[in-house]
Amino acid sequence: MTATTPSASQPPLPEGLVAALTTHFGGRFSQALAIREQHGRDESAYPIMAPDGVVFAESTDDVVVALKACVAHRVPIIAFGAGSSMEGHLLAHRGGITIDVSRMNRILAVQADDMTATVQAGVTRRQLNTELRQTGLFFPIDPGADASLGGMAATRASGTNAVRYGSMRENVLGLTVITADGAVVKTGTRARKSSAGYDLTRLFVGSEGTLGIITEVTVRLYPEPEAVSAAVCCFEHVSDAVATVIQTIQMGVPVARSEFLSGNMIRALNAHSKTSLREMPTLFFEFQGSEASVREQADQVQAIASEFGGLDFEWATLPEERSRLWNARHNALFAAVQSRPGCRAISTDTCVPISRLAESLEGAQRILEDAPFPSMLVGHVGDGNFHALLLVDPENLAEVEAAERLNERIVRLALSMDGTCTGEHGIGLHKIPYLAEEAGEEAITLMRTIKRGLDPLNLLNPGKMFSLAE
Amino acid sequence: MTATTPSASQPPLPEGLVAALTTHFGGRFSQALAIREQHGRDESAYPIMAPDGVVFAESTDDVVVALKACVAHRVPIIAFGAGSSMEGHLLAHRGGITIDVSRMNRILAVQADDMTATVQAGVTRRQLNTELRQTGLFFPIDPGADASLGGMAATRASGTNAVRYGSMRENVLGLTVITADGAVVKTGTRARKSSAGYDLTRLFVGSEGTLGIITEVTVRLYPEPEAVSAAVCCFEHVSDAVATVIQTIQMGVPVARSEFLSGNMIRALNAHSKTSLREMPTLFFEFQGSEASVREQADQVQAIASEFGGLDFEWATLPEERSRLWNARHNALFAAVQSRPGCRAISTDTCVPISRLAESLEGAQRILEDAPFPSMLVGHVGDGNFHALLLVDPENLAEVEAAERLNERIVRLALSMDGTCTGEHGIGLHKIPYLAEEAGEEAITLMRTIKRGLDPLNLLNPGKMFSLAE
Repeated sequence: MTATTPSASQPPLPEGLVAALTTHFGGRFSQALAIREQHGRDESAYPIMAPDGVVFAESTDDVVVALKACVAHRVPIIAFGAGSSMEGHLLAHRGGITIDVSRMNRILAVQADDMTATVQAGVTRRQLNTELRQTGLFFPIDPGADASLGGMAATRASGTNAVRYGSMRENVLGLTVITADGAVVKTGTRARKSSAGYDLTRLFVGSEGTLGIITEVTVRLYPEPEAVSAAVCCFEHVSDAVATVIQTIQMGVPVARSEFLSGNMIRALNAHSKTSLREMPTLFFEFQGSEASVREQADQVQAIASEFGGLDFEWATLPEERSRLWNARHNALFAAVQSRPGCRAISTDTCVPISRLAESLEGAQRILEDAPFPSMLVGHVGDGNFHALLLVDPENLAEVEAAERLNERIVRLALSMDGTCTGEHGIGLHKIPYLAEEAGEEAITLMRTIKRGLDPLNLLNPGKMFSLAE
Repeated sequence: MTATTPSASQPPLPEGLVAALTTHFGGRFSQALAIREQHGRDESAYPIMAPDGVVFAESTDDVVVALKACVAHRVPIIAFGAGSSMEGHLLAHRGGITIDVSRMNRILAVQADDMTATVQAGVTRRQLNTELRQTGLFFPIDPGADASLGGMAATRASGTNAVRYGSMRENVLGLTVITADGAVVKTGTRARKSSAGYDLTRLFVGSEGTLGIITEVTVRLYPEPEAVSAAVCCFEHVSDAVATVIQTIQMGVPVARSEFLSGNMIRALNAHSKTSLREMPTLFFEFQGSEASVREQADQVQAIASEFGGLDFEWATLPEERSRLWNARHNALFAAVQSRPGCRAISTDTCVPISRLAESLEGAQRILEDAPFPSMLVGHVGDGNFHALLLVDPENLAEVEAAERLNERIVRLALSMDGTCTGEHGIGLHKIPYLAEEAGEEAITLMRTIKRGLDPLNLLNPGKMFSLAE
């Protein structure tokens, strides 16, 4: 997280661009410092890097107009949804115009009989699920933050439910994307599967705004399960909690969520969410299905947990108990940050093949013994994915640099296990060297070729994901 | 399926290329007519279009050598696995060299604890499942034919199990691909999910050999279910069978397979596979899971079927009964072809959102009432995907042309329902105009940009999927 040229040193916006955007957008184009700074930060530990202006788009056409104007003036373009990126995706380190799509918040269609919905990119996952409530369907991808669907698609997000339902990779059926030439490209259909041509949908899912601006997203929905139950189980040792998860996955028990939290993470949750969980390594589980299936899954997991010395297997079957548990889990990041006033969390995000989870997680713990700041572990361990939250003082350069060195060691460990540097947060500004190391020179060359083909002027979220210069 | 220039009219292979391939491959490079013709046909109704030579690759390095030699001499390159394409993917309509990877049939690694396997591209799905038998794991994707994993990845194949396990899109974790510049690109990791960079894996899955040659495939495996049962149920009317499937899917019953077969399809199966099924519209189901879950699923489906007048709900719980049923289903294409001696099957492959399945299937039936040849319906209806098998006399141009017109009407109907022209067979030579209609000009332009970026000389399976000239 080295210092990056602040946008203040960028040349000012071309007058022609300001005029064009003002004419079209009126008050929906702003160069006010407060608005720009608000769009120059995210949930990462980076300092503010503000864009030179912000356009509030209300339609796909608005995005086309703003994008074409920026391209005509060779000015960078950054898409902005809910601002919940963890990796600096949204930061305008080369200046330019941010296109805020948060007002594109209409649910365009819910096809309940097909279990699909099409939404504008600024619709958030909570908004979608609220509007789905009376249909008996839900959208499962849940990254914790109330992210926008456009942002979730752009970062290939996942979260607690991915162990059962997959990530955005599996659940986006189609997109509307504006490419650098201003074309409105529709990808995919509403059919559940297709072999028709290149998989443009999945080329854009995870492309972090570097290949086009997503304006509409069509997603898969699922029937609300007949029965849901949750359970909490704590363990003396991290290794026993992890062994429980590994065996659960290897036996094919279709758990809907399986989350690990370190003892000090539980302590922070208790303080933040007024829960009274035992402050030990803990697993949260959720089971979904028919009544019989939920009971069967829960019995299987309880048996596995007790084999590994699980303590206090506690049930949360009432909706309000479950909500309290999962709200606490969702607030883990905030609880962690609150535990050290003034700190920011730098989050690792490695994901490894399930058999290597114990080594990966315990290895991270050992690496963090050297940390000059507190850290907590939390994660979607059923996928092999967890986060070490490194609670650094952002003003203390020594801490920030130490965090980067520790992050790097944790990433290297995951890569040595045929894992990935990022299970769900993406690359952004922060993990560029890790992606290069993970993907290898040939794959990065191929990514560059794609980027150059689709964005020859390098104006779409430039400088994110990989360096374009060889 | 208009006549295409036969490869005989192509200029002969450059002498330098013949010399280079002979030097490196010796007897593993052949220009013998029989070998060339064997590689110039597939399961489509196209006439033979033979390549000018065939290389039998035994390693990734072999593929690199052959590809680089062809590129140096500007000669087209076609990858060939099991030869089971339905859409002319493998045909050398512009001549060139076919790289046969069927000898690349080593299973490189089975990581049972991670439920992943890495295989060479020529490994077939049956071979993989045979070798997995003692691990308690299986690879679910089952397109009927004993296709190669490389070919299945290249066409984004699926099949009977996709309703439960997804298609190759969801089940390929990583690939080794040789790109047009001869680079050996490794995509993906063995982690279950990742947000690291562009999704190169899914760019190549379904790219039909036009962006690179796949030499290795890493796939997800699944635990063999504790219990499996199958059921057969017939109906007076197609509409009732379809309504049963739609409701099963909408209720979220996690069936492992749900296949529809028309009455005359059953008649052909009975003749071919010595079964004695009632010759009526029929559904085949398979249920997988724990004992309790299988029983519950089966009860749910039986209740739905009886609501729609299902007759003779019959169980096949013994492994040999199930095998007989699914073998019969797998042989449907051959049974259909056998029912009209000398015919070839042109197969439609539309897939629609589940609520439109009845309209789509009954619409196809009505369209086929005009056909001057027999036709049968069979399909993976739980996905909204089915095949009309049009049994044409390939020597009778009027029949072939009529089949194309009917296919087009069936495709248009699916596209009008936000469906796709191909659920699983791919585009190949056959569906180029349908892809253009489905994807739209902007998406095709984008596909062309990608193709030009990755294969600037247009040598990788040229002329397949879309026409490169605008």
